[in-house]
Amino acid sequence: MTDSWATFGADLHLDLSAGRGLRAGLTEALREAARSGRLAAGTRLPSSRSLAVDLGIARNTVAEAYAELVAEGWLTARQGSGTRVAERARPRRTPPAAGRARRPARGGPSHDLQPGSPDLSGFPRAAWLSAARRALTNAPNEAFGYAVEVRGRIELREALAGYLARARGVYADPERIVLCAGFVHGLTLLAQVLRARRVREVAVEGYGLDIHRDLLVKAGLRTRPMGVDAEGARTGELGAGGPGVGAVLLTPAHQFPTGVALTPARRAAAVDWARTTGGLILEDDYDGEFRYDRQPVGALQGLDPDRVVYLGTASKSLAPALRIGWLVVPPGLVDEVLAVKGVTDWTSSALEQLTLAEFITSGAYDRHVRGMRLRYRRRRDELVAAVGDRVGVSGIAAGLHAVLDLPEGTTERSVIQSAAWQDLALDGLSRHRHPEADLPPRPAVVVGYGTPSDSAWASALAALSAVLP
Amino acid sequence: MTDSWATFGADLHLDLSAGRGLRAGLTEALREAARSGRLAAGTRLPSSRSLAVDLGIARNTVAEAYAELVAEGWLTARQGSGTRVAERARPRRTPPAAGRARRPARGGPSHDLQPGSPDLSGFPRAAWLSAARRALTNAPNEAFGYAVEVRGRIELREALAGYLARARGVYADPERIVLCAGFVHGLTLLAQVLRARRVREVAVEGYGLDIHRDLLVKAGLRTRPMGVDAEGARTGELGAGGPGVGAVLLTPAHQFPTGVALTPARRAAAVDWARTTGGLILEDDYDGEFRYDRQPVGALQGLDPDRVVYLGTASKSLAPALRIGWLVVPPGLVDEVLAVKGVTDWTSSALEQLTLAEFITSGAYDRHVRGMRLRYRRRRDELVAAVGDRVGVSGIAAGLHAVLDLPEGTTERSVIQSAAWQDLALDGLSRHRHPEADLPPRPAVVVGYGTPSDSAWASALAALSAVLP
Repeated sequence: MTDSWATFGADLHLDLSAGRGLRAGLTEALREAARSGRLAAGTRLPSSRSLAVDLGIARNTVAEAYAELVAEGWLTARQGSGTRVAERARPRRTPPAAGRARRPARGGPSHDLQPGSPDLSGFPRAAWLSAARRALTNAPNEAFGYAVEVRGRIELREALAGYLARARGVYADPERIVLCAGFVHGLTLLAQVLRARRVREVAVEGYGLDIHRDLLVKAGLRTRPMGVDAEGARTGELGAGGPGVGAVLLTPAHQFPTGVALTPARRAAAVDWARTTGGLILEDDYDGEFRYDRQPVGALQGLDPDRVVYLGTASKSLAPALRIGWLVVPPGLVDEVLAVKGVTDWTSSALEQLTLAEFITSGAYDRHVRGMRLRYRRRRDELVAAVGDRVGVSGIAAGLHAVLDLPEGTTERSVIQSAAWQDLALDGLSRHRHPEADLPPRPAVVVGYGTPSDSAWASALAALSAVLP
Repeated sequence: MTDSWATFGADLHLDLSAGRGLRAGLTEALREAARSGRLAAGTRLPSSRSLAVDLGIARNTVAEAYAELVAEGWLTARQGSGTRVAERARPRRTPPAAGRARRPARGGPSHDLQPGSPDLSGFPRAAWLSAARRALTNAPNEAFGYAVEVRGRIELREALAGYLARARGVYADPERIVLCAGFVHGLTLLAQVLRARRVREVAVEGYGLDIHRDLLVKAGLRTRPMGVDAEGARTGELGAGGPGVGAVLLTPAHQFPTGVALTPARRAAAVDWARTTGGLILEDDYDGEFRYDRQPVGALQGLDPDRVVYLGTASKSLAPALRIGWLVVPPGLVDEVLAVKGVTDWTSSALEQLTLAEFITSGAYDRHVRGMRLRYRRRRDELVAAVGDRVGVSGIAAGLHAVLDLPEGTTERSVIQSAAWQDLALDGLSRHRHPEADLPPRPAVVVGYGTPSDSAWASALAALSAVLP
C-alpha cells in the first residue's frame, strides 16, 4: 500500500465485491446507490481522479462508469459543478406515522405570549461567538477528550461559583457544583438519587409545570400538591405529608406560574421541615436573574446549604437551546449525584461549557442580563399600563411572565378561545394546576411577556388587549 | 420606580432586610458575604455608583460602607482594579470524601496508548470555529429556543443523511435520524425502548466495552456473550439464545477491541436471525471513517435498514468532548425512540448541532477525516515496523487501535506491569472480555495508536517497543 491517498474531495462508500469486471461492478454499484435513494438527488460525487485513487483503480475506469450513468440519466455532469446524482433519483421517504405531527410548523402562532421562553432575538450572538473563540483558542487538548471530571469543566464551575454567590446569594463551592444539560436533566438526576434513597413521594407546588411532575412520576415517584397563595407555596403543609415525602420542589424566587416570592416565614417553614425530617428542598431558580424591584430575593439555598439543592439554568438568562444547567449540591449528596450521572460527563459539550465560563468571567453574562432586564421591565410596565385597569395584574416583581386575574363573570376558557381566534397563544392558569391540588377557583391567564421579539411585542400586546374584557 | 437602572457592572445580591440603618445594614451584609466565603477572595465588587443605583440608595452610603470594610481588611481598593474581596477572606472548602479522587490528575500517564480516544491535538479548532461563526450568524431565532423537533435539528439530520449514505453505505432518511449526546446516550435510549418492548436479554460480543454492558444491565437487561474469532462475532450462536434475546449489539466494521471486520457470512447470519425472530441489530459504527485498505466495509445497516439500528458518533472522527451522536432508526421504531427521548430535545445544544451541520456541508468534515486517516495510517505502519517481528499485530485494516498477540511464554500481566513501570498505559485484551464469555485464552495487549498527539507518538512507541519481549 502506498501513501498515495487522496486528501481532497468527498468520501464515497461503494461495494464492489460482486464478482464482475471492475468497470461493470462500479457502474452497477453507483446505479444501485442512485436508484435506491442511498445517494440523494443532487449529491456531488468525488472527481474521477479522487475516486480512482481511493479505490486503487485506473482513472479511466471511473470516468467511463460516470459517462455511462450520465447517458442512462442516473447522473448529471456539468462544467464547474462536477458529477451529481440526477434529480429523477428520488429517495423513498418514510411516510409520517398517523396521529403525530412529524414536522411541526415552524412559525407558531402570530402572537406568542405563552410563558417559559426568553426573547430569543435577544441572544448575544456576537459576544457568544467571541467567547467561543477565546475558549477554543485557550482550551488545553485534554478538553476535547472524554471528561476527566464527572461534575463538568472546572472552569465553568469556578465561574458559576463566583457568579451565584455574588448575584444569587448561593453558597457555591466548585466541588459541589454539578453541571448538567439543563433543568430537566438536573431534576432527572435528583429523581434517580431520591429513588435510590427509597423516597416515594415529592411535595410539589399546586401550580407548576406538568413536565416536571411527569418527570418525577416517570422516575417512580408520586407527587403531592401543596396549596399556593399570595405568600407562595404553603410549606406549612409539608409536615402533614408524613414520612413518605422525602423532598419538596419549590420555585421560591418567582413561583411558577403565579409569580409570587416565597415569604420569609414560608421559607423558614420549608427549612424547618427539611431539618426535622431529613428531607431535601429542590430549589428551582429558573428566572432569578430577572428581578425588577429593589427588594432583593436571594436563593433559599443560602438559608441552609446542607438541606437545599439549588438548580439553575441558562435557559431563561441566555437560551434554552444551549442545554446548560447546574446543580449546587449539599456536601452529603455529591457522591450520590455523581454516581447517577455516570463515570464521565456523557451529556454536555465541553466546548460550550468553556464558552459559557469565558462568557461569565469576561463580564458579558452580567452585561447581557442587565440589558435583557431593562427590556423585560419595559414590557412589563407597558403590559400593566395597557390592561391593568381591566384585570388584576400580579407576579410582576420579577421574571418573564405575569398573571392576569379576570373580572367577575369572565371565564378563562372564553378568553383563551377569543385569543385563539386572533392567533394569540396564551396559557390559562388552570392549565398549570396539579390535578389533585386543593386550590380555590381562580379564573386567570398567564402572559409570557418575555417570549416575543421586540418587533413582535407591540402587536402581541395589542392582540392581548383586544381579547380581554 | 424610574428607568434609572445601571446597565453596567456586575450583579451583586445583598440581603439588607435586617432592621438597621442602611449603611450599617449594607456594611454587615458585605462583611458577612466576605467572611463566610460566599464572595470569594478576589471577587470584584460593583462600583459604588452602580450598586447605589441598583439598591436605590445614595452613592455616598455605598462608598462609606466600602471604605469601612477596606479599613477592616475585608475588602481591598486599588486604583484601576476597583474594590475587591481581600485575600484573607477564604471560603470554607468541602473536604474531599474518602475513597474517591475528587480531582484526578490532569496529566495522566507519560505515554498513553489506551484505546478509545482519537488524537485530541488534531481537533480542527480554526475550521470548527469558522463553522460556528457561519452557524451562529445564519441561525433563525427559533434555533435558540426549546427544540421544536425531538429528533434534533433538521440541518444536521440532512447533512448526516447525505454523508452516511455517501461514505458509510447507510440508508439514511433525515426523518429516521435521531440525534443524541453520543453513543452512550443513544444506547441508553435504545435500552429503554427494548425494556418497554419487554426484551430481557441482549446478545453482545464476547470482547467489548464494559461500560456498554454495564449500561444495558443498569437498564434492566441481561447480556449474553457470543464468541469472537478471526471472522468477528460468531453470530451463528444467536439462534441458541432462545426467544429471550431481543437484540444484538455488534461492531461490524472494526470489532472492538480485536479489530476484525465481520465477514459477509457472519453479517448474513445476524440479519437472518433478526428477520426470523423479529430481533434488532444495534450496529456500533464507532470508527468506521478510518479504513486503511482498499476493500470497502460498509455499514451492516445497508443489508436491512428495517432490522438494523445504526449508531454513529463524532467522538472518534472529531472529539469525544462534543457529545454528539446519531441513530438511524428503522421506520417501525422511530416513534418508540422519540417517546423515550422526551417531548423536546432536552440534551443537545442546537448551536453545536448547527455547527456540525455547517462543518459537514462545507466539506470540512471530509477534509478533516482524510487528514486524520493519513496521520493514523502512518502511525499504524510505524507500529507494525517497530514491533511486528516480535508480536503478532492484527486488527489494523481500520480504526485507531491494534491488538498485539504476545509470544509463547509471555503473559499479558507481565507486559502491562513493565509498561506501568515505564509510565506507559496499555490495555490487556482480557480487560475487555465479557466475564461469562466462552473464549480461548489469548495473551495480548490492545494498543491505541490514535491516542497520543503527534509529538508524543514517537516516545510512546519507543516505550512500547521497550516493554515487549
